Amino acid sequence: MKQSTLFTRTQKNAPKDEVSLNAQLLIRAGFIDKEMAGVYSFLPLGLRTLNKIIDIIRQEMNAIGGQELYLTALQNPELWKKTGRWSDDVLDVWFKTEVASGGEVGLGTTHEEPLTNLIKKHISSYKDLPRYVYQFQTKFRNEKRAKSGIMRLREFIMKDLYSFHTDQNDLDEYYEKAARAYANIFRRAGLGDLTYRTYASGGTFAKYSHEFQTLTEAGEDLIYICDKCHIAVNKEIIEDLEHKCPECGASNLREGKAVEVGNIFKLGTKFSAALELNYKDQNGETKPVIMGCYGIGPQRLMGTIAEILSDERGLVWPEAVAPFQVHLLSLGKNAEAEKIYDDLVKNNIEILFDDREDASAGAKFADADLIGIPWRIVLSEKSLAAGGAEIKRRNEKDSHIVPLADIERGLK
Amino acid sequence: MKQSTLFTRTQKNAPKDEVSLNAQLLIRAGFIDKEMAGVYSFLPLGLRTLNKIIDIIRQEMNAIGGQELYLTALQNPELWKKTGRWSDDVLDVWFKTEVASGGEVGLGTTHEEPLTNLIKKHISSYKDLPRYVYQFQTKFRNEKRAKSGIMRLREFIMKDLYSFHTDQNDLDEYYEKAARAYANIFRRAGLGDLTYRTYASGGTFAKYSHEFQTLTEAGEDLIYICDKCHIAVNKEIIEDLEHKCPECGASNLREGKAVEVGNIFKLGTKFSAALELNYKDQNGETKPVIMGCYGIGPQRLMGTIAEILSDERGLVWPEAVAPFQVHLLSLGKNAEAEKIYDDLVKNNIEILFDDREDASAGAKFADADLIGIPWRIVLSEKSLAAGGAEIKRRNEKDSHIVPLADIERGLK
Repeated sequence: MKQSTLFTRTQKNAPKDEVSLNAQLLIRAGFIDKEMAGVYSFLPLGLRTLNKIIDIIRQEMNAIGGQELYLTALQNPELWKKTGRWSDDVLDVWFKTEVASGGEVGLGTTHEEPLTNLIKKHISSYKDLPRYVYQFQTKFRNEKRAKSGIMRLREFIMKDLYSFHTDQNDLDEYYEKAARAYANIFRRAGLGDLTYRTYASGGTFAKYSHEFQTLTEAGEDLIYICDKCHIAVNKEIIEDLEHKCPECGASNLREGKAVEVGNIFKLGTKFSAALELNYKDQNGETKPVIMGCYGIGPQRLMGTIAEILSDERGLVWPEAVAPFQVHLLSLGKNAEAEKIYDDLVKNNIEILFDDREDASAGAKFADADLIGIPWRIVLSEKSLAAGGAEIKRRNEKDSHIVPLADIERGLK
Repeated sequence: MKQSTLFTRTQKNAPKDEVSLNAQLLIRAGFIDKEMAGVYSFLPLGLRTLNKIIDIIRQEMNAIGGQELYLTALQNPELWKKTGRWSDDVLDVWFKTEVASGGEVGLGTTHEEPLTNLIKKHISSYKDLPRYVYQFQTKFRNEKRAKSGIMRLREFIMKDLYSFHTDQNDLDEYYEKAARAYANIFRRAGLGDLTYRTYASGGTFAKYSHEFQTLTEAGEDLIYICDKCHIAVNKEIIEDLEHKCPECGASNLREGKAVEVGNIFKLGTKFSAALELNYKDQNGETKPVIMGCYGIGPQRLMGTIAEILSDERGLVWPEAVAPFQVHLLSLGKNAEAEKIYDDLVKNNIEILFDDREDASAGAKFADADLIGIPWRIVLSEKSLAAGGAEIKRRNEKDSHIVPLADIERGLK
């Protein structure tokens, strides 16, 4: 894409009321725009990045048998009354409103109730199980505080996967499979080393649930890491575990601030019992379906990457989630750059071409650093005199000259 | 995909309160589920179809220079007060609710206000124009009546494109380009012959706006068609036009019921003036930006296809929007069918394989007709004895036998 046609511009300063680093950088670079606290629009560069993250998650969900659907934001209170979660005392983040033809509706904060109810129409026998169903849907949460940029939103996309099983064993096995898929997602998104599977409270039906927590000073959680096992424990249960690693028993756990980038939870029969999702087993006996649920917020993941992998000059995207792979800067050499651009586009390389004629070299360099595309190629009088184009990775200091004929090979 | 793993089942009957044909068929075939009146979930088959339609629209928007972004559902009242559209007397389909930290918010029914406001941060000179920006976003409309299945929803995805220009000429040219892109969309989706560019009221800034209306008895609009020009006139302005075609002047217009599947509108300076979206021209003079807007609801389009192209046995999808291209039915011949399935999957043909062992031949045939995939391949004792597999198009009556080695060539 040619930058001269991109409608967004970078900005020198973020809005004064924006206190989070991730949102400051993303706004300045033209990735997002703030509609109100906790509510952000995604502009072309931001949407490309978000869609890369969504695609990684979708691939991993499909790989563990997930079938994608798309539930609704508007929620019928009747279902939620059956599980007791319509009450604001139980679920305190509802947005509620009225339908013109009469009656209240809520904006979905999560989707266990409607999905359990839907599945009832399609499952009746042990032969219909297991099933794995997921969606990317907008959730609305009426949070009292929303000051962490896109790491805590009032309106956000969530990937939620739900699994349905005949027995606990089958759930346990799938739960571990889902945990591995989650680890894949964070690794592919560039946060593998900083992200810990974290023991958390399991509620009434399981000893533990698990969160995936990524270390960052911007996080709102406190975790205790066992470096030997590469797992962590959430503060909420560290006392119960007597400050010991639940896997190896070590007590030299390291404390760190972290953000929850995903969670997996064994629901057991909590929802299937309340909403009567049953199946007939081999002997014709009626039993409640056993359920698990597995959530990730792609925007929070994007915000966490922006927060952690940025530097003082701007964003630094891993290749797997970058809006473009290559940022080509032409410093008064548009004809030669145009040729490189055409060649790379032809070879399906995602490239942003800074062809702006009214921008200075300094402005182009500053924008490239702020936007954070992994590879920067500069074409100038100077680079041509030195033998070609100057190539540099965003996260490395030094550039080198590559002959124009070898540029594609230079991108590795 | 193997049908034995698909979590949805077809249903003999639609819910009793479902009065629209499109929703009855789509629910019975397992494409959608009704959450409440005007609010439907999209199940795997339905989501695949919806995504095909969205992809067609996206391709056509990209082809006319559209840049995709993603605005928010939650809307800040302040902006809408500036244009006078926060009032329920002016815009009577708002859902409104309260933020926990204080203050009202609305759920976006359309996005002229936030987009105009956003663009202000990125446009200042004639050099920044024209710009074309679009999104697929969920709109919420608090409709009093919602009895047309997915042809009139209270919660739905809308593709809305907005264009920004320095002058009327440039808008006029782009408007015609957008109209051609819209015609492409309806043609590709299989509704080209039944869809008419329809003259409608232009509001304060233009003589006409245009709707795209598709003929169907299920439509809520009345249009007057000029068969010679292949255009129509909406009832609301037919009196003003003295019942004559605005293009050729003919008065033998044909009346028909139709559904509005898209609309394009010259907004002029209505929103740019109210929200102060200006640019500096070549002489340094400040002028308001001229705008156009262009909308399509992918779900309404899907409902219209379901409504019009179905028959007494079920849905009939055009290839471009079908959830799968081929429905392979194995009647007790799973081993041979498995081989065909693997071959077609390998060749990237989208195939649903009815491998269910507990379903009768009759049930499989009925399901295939109900689901409406364009090609049906049956493998049975009988077909093998006749020399191979039996191939039939969903919208044709007769099948024919194709040798197993020639199946892929038989799909045309």
